[in-house]
Amino acid sequence: MSMRDFSQDHRWLSINTATVRKSRGVDLPLPDIIEACARRGIRAISPWRDQVAAAGLDAISKLVKTHGLELSGYCRGGMFTAVDDTGLKAAHADNRRAVDEACELGARCLVLVVGALPGALAGQAAHKDIALSRNQVSDGIGALLDYAGSCGMPLAIEPLHPMYAADRACINTMEQALDVCDELDPTQSEALGVALDVYHCWWDPKLQQQIARAGKARLLAFHVCDWLTPTTDLLNDRGMMGDGVIDIPRIRGWVEAQGFAGYSEVEIFSTGNWWQRDAGDVLNTCIARHKSAV
Amino acid sequence: MSMRDFSQDHRWLSINTATVRKSRGVDLPLPDIIEACARRGIRAISPWRDQVAAAGLDAISKLVKTHGLELSGYCRGGMFTAVDDTGLKAAHADNRRAVDEACELGARCLVLVVGALPGALAGQAAHKDIALSRNQVSDGIGALLDYAGSCGMPLAIEPLHPMYAADRACINTMEQALDVCDELDPTQSEALGVALDVYHCWWDPKLQQQIARAGKARLLAFHVCDWLTPTTDLLNDRGMMGDGVIDIPRIRGWVEAQGFAGYSEVEIFSTGNWWQRDAGDVLNTCIARHKSAV
Repeated sequence: MSMRDFSQDHRWLSINTATVRKSRGVDLPLPDIIEACARRGIRAISPWRDQVAAAGLDAISKLVKTHGLELSGYCRGGMFTAVDDTGLKAAHADNRRAVDEACELGARCLVLVVGALPGALAGQAAHKDIALSRNQVSDGIGALLDYAGSCGMPLAIEPLHPMYAADRACINTMEQALDVCDELDPTQSEALGVALDVYHCWWDPKLQQQIARAGKARLLAFHVCDWLTPTTDLLNDRGMMGDGVIDIPRIRGWVEAQGFAGYSEVEIFSTGNWWQRDAGDVLNTCIARHKSAV
Repeated sequence: MSMRDFSQDHRWLSINTATVRKSRGVDLPLPDIIEACARRGIRAISPWRDQVAAAGLDAISKLVKTHGLELSGYCRGGMFTAVDDTGLKAAHADNRRAVDEACELGARCLVLVVGALPGALAGQAAHKDIALSRNQVSDGIGALLDYAGSCGMPLAIEPLHPMYAADRACINTMEQALDVCDELDPTQSEALGVALDVYHCWWDPKLQQQIARAGKARLLAFHVCDWLTPTTDLLNDRGMMGDGVIDIPRIRGWVEAQGFAGYSEVEIFSTGNWWQRDAGDVLNTCIARHKSAV
């Protein structure tokens, strides 16, 4: 199977709205982001819950339909770990709301950033037992899977780069994510799969093998940006496609060889560079790099 | 097998000399580091080549013998990747010199930080083909293994955290390192193994399994420090044992269950904190934390 040709148009470009969360350093409301995407013929977005909440779910739902936009994903559910039952129940309730919102918006999947050591994101981990966190994550996804299945919303586990294992996600490789999928969804019902972000997984010597293991049924989303050398911040120094060291076309080839035919979603967190630029210019650059570097 | 009791003394503490490379922000010469360690009854160090070169190999060799110090390792060989044969040959020649120095100093092993995309460490990768780099690394280790074997110096591949895959080391997990060991040294001759640093490997869901796979024959070195939340710099923000989220005793337990009975080597790079303190205070803290948090 040959790869799709992205060089002529941006039919398969999706914009994760965090990429233009700020324009010239100032917060950009989601309706403005949607309008800016629609004006450029961008066909899909992946919005964040806080941006949706700020503008109102109903308003965003209507705006998305007005412009005929697809949602390559919805960001995000997860954060399943906690120090006690109260925390676990609160996480579960919040994740059900995220599923509801994703259904209302017609998203392709709900992306799951699964959580890690409770408290670590705030600077003080409650414990050091990452195995316990991993068990809580499996339990949490399992419980959510029943709920999401009842309204037909696929769940996409996003393995995060190991540098986030302490504070954001204790699922850190495709192999580990697929082990969870196989445990919770042994029939490959397409209710559970992975969101593969090249930023998190490009380094993995088993990446090609695990993409093949995932197959079309488990590959629910494909995210792109680039790894810069040097990287000056663990969270917010992602690069534009083509500016770093990731061989994105090679990885896209592996994904498409499995039959993946969805969007390439651009997700860039960049305090010092892209968030300082004009959002329109950033979108234009995303379109250009989608053609030349993805 | 129960773990060794570290709580009573620091018999099995080794100091990687990068930990006290600076005292109050000023470079500390290796002879001063050695004297400071010896005064505190520290029995082993692991020095860096640049520190040895600055003081002179003969002088350091004599000083080490005078104090009866052991070397838990020698830092470091590696950087096997290059853009052409000239570069590959230069790397090989430099690695042979590193083996010679390690032999002269009586090190337990030569630690290998294997290299990654050539040019990336200087900010501009010459290519994006990490598979090519990995092949060059295997070839480089294979060639060096013959030379090191002739003088009996074990080579210890150090898998580095995946956040260094672009610029420092394209071997990033224990599994991957052990795959290389099995390929190049199928008889487990003890000429080739791994240096396990908890900082690089703590997040890995397969860590316990791969430590068991390594076994005593492949476990040549054990390095400790801690992962801070937040981590503010990709290279130089390592924490003192006990200040972060790594369950160090659990990992040491896995290592010792395989029969490892060597040193716990403290290796901390810390521009903003530990390198700003008095080196004597840092060594005192290493001794205390070796007892309480390792």
